[in-house]
Amino acid sequence: MDDVKIPYSLNSKAVAQATRAWLHTRGVKIEEIAELVLLLQQKYYPSLTMEECVHNIERVLSKREIQNAVLTGIQLDLLAEEGKLLPPLQEMIENDESLYGVDEILAFSIVNVYGSIGFTNYGYIDKLKPPGVLERLNDKSDGKVHTFLDDIVGAIAAAASSRIAHRKQAEREKELGLPHEPEDSEETSNTLDAEKMQRNNEA
Amino acid sequence: MDDVKIPYSLNSKAVAQATRAWLHTRGVKIEEIAELVLLLQQKYYPSLTMEECVHNIERVLSKREIQNAVLTGIQLDLLAEEGKLLPPLQEMIENDESLYGVDEILAFSIVNVYGSIGFTNYGYIDKLKPPGVLERLNDKSDGKVHTFLDDIVGAIAAAASSRIAHRKQAEREKELGLPHEPEDSEETSNTLDAEKMQRNNEA
Amino acid sequence: MDDVKIPYSLNSKAVAQATRAWLHTRGVKIEEIAELVLLLQQKYYPSLTMEECVHNIERVLSKREIQNAVLTGIQLDLLAEEGKLLPPLQEMIENDESLYGVDEILAFSIVNVYGSIGFTNYGYIDKLKPPGVLERLNDKSDGKVHTFLDDIVGAIAAAASSRIAHRKQAEREKELGLPHEPEDSEETSNTLDAEKMQRNNEA
Amino acid sequence: MDDVKIPYSLNSKAVAQATRAWLHTRGVKIEEIAELVLLLQQKYYPSLTMEECVHNIERVLSKREIQNAVLTGIQLDLLAEEGKLLPPLQEMIENDESLYGVDEILAFSIVNVYGSIGFTNYGYIDKLKPPGVLERLNDKSDGKVHTFLDDIVGAIAAAASSRIAHRKQAEREKELGLPHEPEDSEETSNTLDAEKMQRNNEA
Repeated sequence: MDDVKIPYSLNSKAVAQATRAWLHTRGVKIEEIAELVLLLQQKYYPSLTMEECVHNIERVLSKREIQNAVLTGIQLDLLAEEGKLLPPLQEMIENDESLYGVDEILAFSIVNVYGSIGFTNYGYIDKLKPPGVLERLNDKSDGKVHTFLDDIVGAIAAAASSRIAHRKQAEREKELGLPHEPEDSEETSNTLDAEKMQRNNEA
Repeated sequence: MDDVKIPYSLNSKAVAQATRAWLHTRGVKIEEIAELVLLLQQKYYPSLTMEECVHNIERVLSKREIQNAVLTGIQLDLLAEEGKLLPPLQEMIENDESLYGVDEILAFSIVNVYGSIGFTNYGYIDKLKPPGVLERLNDKSDGKVHTFLDDIVGAIAAAASSRIAHRKQAEREKELGLPHEPEDSEETSNTLDAEKMQRNNEA
Repeated sequence: MDDVKIPYSLNSKAVAQATRAWLHTRGVKIEEIAELVLLLQQKYYPSLTMEECVHNIERVLSKREIQNAVLTGIQLDLLAEEGKLLPPLQEMIENDESLYGVDEILAFSIVNVYGSIGFTNYGYIDKLKPPGVLERLNDKSDGKVHTFLDDIVGAIAAAASSRIAHRKQAEREKELGLPHEPEDSEETSNTLDAEKMQRNNEA
Repeated sequence: MDDVKIPYSLNSKAVAQATRAWLHTRGVKIEEIAELVLLLQQKYYPSLTMEECVHNIERVLSKREIQNAVLTGIQLDLLAEEGKLLPPLQEMIENDESLYGVDEILAFSIVNVYGSIGFTNYGYIDKLKPPGVLERLNDKSDGKVHTFLDDIVGAIAAAASSRIAHRKQAEREKELGLPHEPEDSEETSNTLDAEKMQRNNEA
């Protein structure tokens, strides 16, 4: 009975782990993305630490929507690097064709999860290409293809920046004893009752 | 010195409360949106209850990004109803001009927060206009202007549907004892340490 | 000197031709997409013909942005069908995982080119899956993978519908002798002077 | 019979004219936007002229989708300036609240019309705020509210940059006698036959 197929079901842990593993394999360290976040945000929050930036990137990477974009983009980079895409798509991705914008589209879907305030941070960091991970990913001299990955890294930094902005508002309100209305916490717990309890505690 | 201006700072509770109050004033009940969610989702989750739908809508409405879209859209409807916009924008919004798509753009920003899987649910429910709140908001006979609100209501239902889909996956994995990787919970707590503790407990 | 590499430059004709060829190879006929357009639009324009629908789809397919999305989506379908993607992305695309929304994101980039009024048409037709090409692409029984293509086809139909709505407005104004301001025609001609001439003629 | 209402129909010329008039009234000159385009594009096209930039902005402004975003954004700025919005929306727009992103959402709908390659240009110019129109619009000292307009101006510059990139590709292919496939020209003419004729001539 070797042809019995186990019904497909999403393995969320495997997807989350692959996201981190693929970023690592393609040479991107979370700390490097954290440097981009710090560059974008320290103007607004001078006491922001690298540890906080790393933490916020970790939370961003836990989102299914973002994992999907990361895996799809890196997969296309890999296949282009190995010359396994069909022409003319192969040439467009391999050469980071300037009229090909699917990389920006995937990046944008990452930013979107934490809201529209991240749009400009993504565009800014992507154009600026500060020394570090973005500059290295854009160095085409080593035969590597990072057409998608450079946009993805900028988008993760922008999303983490948005997450920080939302949390800093929450922290400020709590510190000052101002009225505060917490935003959705999608996976605090797995039951309706636990969520209710939480809200009651917060009320 | 009565002209000393208190520096502006966002009052997140006031924004959250206004969102609910404005929806209520414009005649939209959370239960009616919940009926749309049930219509969209009971095919996939036969045991889904109205209570769960209401709960998920409540969480969707707690998001700042979504509150901004709701308030902006209803404000434009109100001003158009009172004839207070400048021509030709007044006529376009008052008459729900078919080539005017800013209402769809705002709706889309609501759906986006819970990811791309909600795009089609929004379009479907908006075109279908099942009997209930959407049909009523589209009845132009009473002099009310709901050019933005009908799209907003459909978008909230679509966003809540996406939220349910993500949570049902989490519940299923936990019930079956499958490996599970929780998604970001933006506001579980207000400190980094508490978040770490939570993650350690889950690990 | 056989290692001299010809510098890359986009071959726009090859990209356009590949778009049509790949759609054809994957079993999608322009006439079938035209039937979706007719289904979406005949309520508003009873005299709309199949020929007009085909024509508008042809114009939609001439857009670089849309060609990029079509080629990328079909490429991912093909690779998933051949089992050439890495796990867990392979499983997600092969099984049209419901929490994987990159197909919706690419579809959305197609709709966007003709504006926000197409958002709801895309969602509606994608959910409705009327008998015809969309129903066939969703039939998983033949081992084919069309995770991206079914969304792409719906999006092309929605984009063509938006194009028709914009043109019908233009036609109506011209027929009634109303003041008319033509929209951008991106590639009427290849020189600035010719464009100016055109505008002068229209003025 | 003074209560007979003329049925509404879009006056496209009035919408186009209002778009230009409102930009002018709010102190934005087309030439100033052209300077932003030049700043963004002269690196890629050293021979690009101010005249070409102005021309491309004019074409961008002829798009209905973009006119809708410009009018809606400026209207909200105006009402906020006059204190005519309801709290708490009034305070958020008046103070350009950092967690309010509807201005970015409208800006993004402008960029989208010319494709995803414009996303990063918009973000970059919006963050950079070079001396000129963007710096002036962000100067809050004069009591004016330009929460939406500064994003709109950056988005128009980004859209014009994308339009230039697409046309430069077309020009290059024609000059070098390379195979060329023209992109959609939405309003070359108002009849199907004329479009066909054009395509035949190009073939």
